[in-house]
Amino acid sequence: MSILIEGAILKGEPHSLWLEGGRIRAIRAGTDPDWGESAGTPDRVLDGRGLHAFPSLRNSHTHVAMVLFRGYGDDMPLMKWLETRIWPAEGRLTAEDVYDGARLGILEMIRSGTSFFNEMYWHRPALVRAVEDMGVRAMLGVNLIDLGDPATLEAQKDEIRELVPGGEGTGRARLALAPHSVYTVGPKELEWVGELAREHDVRIHIHLSETAGEVERCVEEHGCRPAEHLRRLGLVGPHLIAAHGQYLDEAELALLAEGGATVVTNPLANLKLATGGIFPYAAARRAGLRVCLGTDGASSNNNLDLFEEIKMVALLQKHREADATVLPADEALGLATTVPARLFGQGSGEVAEGEPADLVLVDLSGPATQPVHDPVSALVYAANGSCVRTTICDGQVLMHEGVVEVCDEDEVVARAVEVARRVTAE
Amino acid sequence: MSILIEGAILKGEPHSLWLEGGRIRAIRAGTDPDWGESAGTPDRVLDGRGLHAFPSLRNSHTHVAMVLFRGYGDDMPLMKWLETRIWPAEGRLTAEDVYDGARLGILEMIRSGTSFFNEMYWHRPALVRAVEDMGVRAMLGVNLIDLGDPATLEAQKDEIRELVPGGEGTGRARLALAPHSVYTVGPKELEWVGELAREHDVRIHIHLSETAGEVERCVEEHGCRPAEHLRRLGLVGPHLIAAHGQYLDEAELALLAEGGATVVTNPLANLKLATGGIFPYAAARRAGLRVCLGTDGASSNNNLDLFEEIKMVALLQKHREADATVLPADEALGLATTVPARLFGQGSGEVAEGEPADLVLVDLSGPATQPVHDPVSALVYAANGSCVRTTICDGQVLMHEGVVEVCDEDEVVARAVEVARRVTAE
Repeated sequence: MSILIEGAILKGEPHSLWLEGGRIRAIRAGTDPDWGESAGTPDRVLDGRGLHAFPSLRNSHTHVAMVLFRGYGDDMPLMKWLETRIWPAEGRLTAEDVYDGARLGILEMIRSGTSFFNEMYWHRPALVRAVEDMGVRAMLGVNLIDLGDPATLEAQKDEIRELVPGGEGTGRARLALAPHSVYTVGPKELEWVGELAREHDVRIHIHLSETAGEVERCVEEHGCRPAEHLRRLGLVGPHLIAAHGQYLDEAELALLAEGGATVVTNPLANLKLATGGIFPYAAARRAGLRVCLGTDGASSNNNLDLFEEIKMVALLQKHREADATVLPADEALGLATTVPARLFGQGSGEVAEGEPADLVLVDLSGPATQPVHDPVSALVYAANGSCVRTTICDGQVLMHEGVVEVCDEDEVVARAVEVARRVTAE
Repeated sequence: MSILIEGAILKGEPHSLWLEGGRIRAIRAGTDPDWGESAGTPDRVLDGRGLHAFPSLRNSHTHVAMVLFRGYGDDMPLMKWLETRIWPAEGRLTAEDVYDGARLGILEMIRSGTSFFNEMYWHRPALVRAVEDMGVRAMLGVNLIDLGDPATLEAQKDEIRELVPGGEGTGRARLALAPHSVYTVGPKELEWVGELAREHDVRIHIHLSETAGEVERCVEEHGCRPAEHLRRLGLVGPHLIAAHGQYLDEAELALLAEGGATVVTNPLANLKLATGGIFPYAAARRAGLRVCLGTDGASSNNNLDLFEEIKMVALLQKHREADATVLPADEALGLATTVPARLFGQGSGEVAEGEPADLVLVDLSGPATQPVHDPVSALVYAANGSCVRTTICDGQVLMHEGVVEVCDEDEVVARAVEVARRVTAE
């Protein structure tokens, strides 16, 4: 499949892009450049005129099917919300429900320019199917969480034992290990996860240092803070992807950086759940730690629009450091493009020749984004997901001119709404 | 002019609304209710089916024409940004440029559901014309700022002397007095403004306690903090509308509340300019102070989408108080609807019989807002300005089904872009 994008704006000037075999084969200045005789005829031509080409976004921490619980219990204390709303409803979810929820979440991500998500949820086979049907890329964590029932824990471990020997896998739906957190998975199981991950070259996706209470409890029970706890158990390494990290102290940032680990900050969910902290981004960068950006689940956000996170991570860090020059627009954009692209094996995350064809076309011509003194500023500080017109993943057009091509949108929304009604009926 | 809106969703159920003479004359359940024989035939029928009716939004602090400088110098220290970018460019603005800039900003507001803005900028006659041409409501402050040139200051005072005897005025473009701040307007001039405001029943719109430096300097020069300084000069009363207020202490919150004054918080601009504080909302409410919401200018935001502010004020206050139950969705929405509507004489700010016809129809059917467990939650936490399909102000349809009816959108954008290019050319 070859695709020609004509006249999209790249770094301020019209360019045309030739996509082939999932990659950006060539980029030429102008709307109708000479591709040479050997180029042949493209299978499809997209009119990019007036639209800005940017890398597509990568959401490095989410629970995609939780869009089903968007707005189902806001403004509640965390534990009361989990105990009276989320957990009972989640207990009613079948694999098919998760498939329906995941498709809605992926549809929302496609509409807002996201081509990849790093996921942690139940019913992995249903998630794999949703990812493949919708055409995005994902890393899908196999859950491990001790709910107090040894049989359930063993069943989860069996699933992991069965899947992990294949490694991370290839294609759009990759495998990861997802032990929930240091407070819901015991040291023995965590150690086992670490060994498996190293042996089979698989990533570990975990919640880490999200609340002050988690840190206190870890110190009490294990005699050290959460990141050090993971280090002692052998989990800190390039495989480790830790979500949140608001309460990481300097020593923990340093040991994570030294191990080559990644932290994913989720600014809006952290604010909404009032877990208290703003991620210490400047200190993390000083320590040399890799930082990516996520939305967390839509039940605590309440959407999957990464543009909101990109803008807010930049604004919150300026606030945190009392310095307007901190985390400028292009660096903030990088937390959802270049940094995760490199981390998850999707090239450089730039729109450049030879790179994977994961990109978006964005309309900045509307009254909310004009004048465009600087396209990156307009994208980061003024735009939102509704400005995305075209989303391309792995050389496949998922949406063009606002029309999603990989599903019947009304059907996806209707099925998810029906599931949400059923599982939240009291 | 009578307008019938058929079948819009109000509090979860389809209703029809009859608008007449700038008011909501009647609301009936259903899509095709019986209006009685005396109702007659409406001049216009709007299909509201599937759309949610909400009050339109009110932006209580902005500098609308500054959309011209959207993205013109981000991520810079405040003074460097003002001195090297904003002030030189503003110095080149003609009245006609301000008219063109204001139309772009108003267009953006109409698109994102805002029907009113409280403004502080130069060239008031141009602003009045833009407001009247675009059909929104506004309160337009006459600037007073001491730039060190006595002649300029006297000219500003002459303008005020000429305008103020007419009072606040009637119609959509009202008058206010806008002394810039306690650090740019001397005590003598501030006192004079206070007297005029009381005598002629006109509001005062001022920046207050935006930075720690402002507070320090006020204490140094005047022996008291900024709100107390205003009180001593006779400016604290129901007429006073103070923007920002991050550094107000408990005593200042109390004296402002006691005087019946209003504070307008602008969360995104405060973060972006790294002025250091998050407005002490909980303390302000405990003191009984009226609080409204604004975007500030788009040059420090970088858009005028009040939905972003409503979501973020709620999230930031949860964070500030470490309590997820603080500032719930409906209260946050009220900061941009019911509270400013009452303050600015536009009824209750609710969609109810007898109220002014200032309302929006919002599409919550898309994948970013579904499922809708609670319409107010969906609007506040999941939606953004792009979900607004219809904006009605004072009984006039400004936009319907996404089509703006009060201007040629392309022409408005093109003219503003041309102005922006010219005044920022170096």
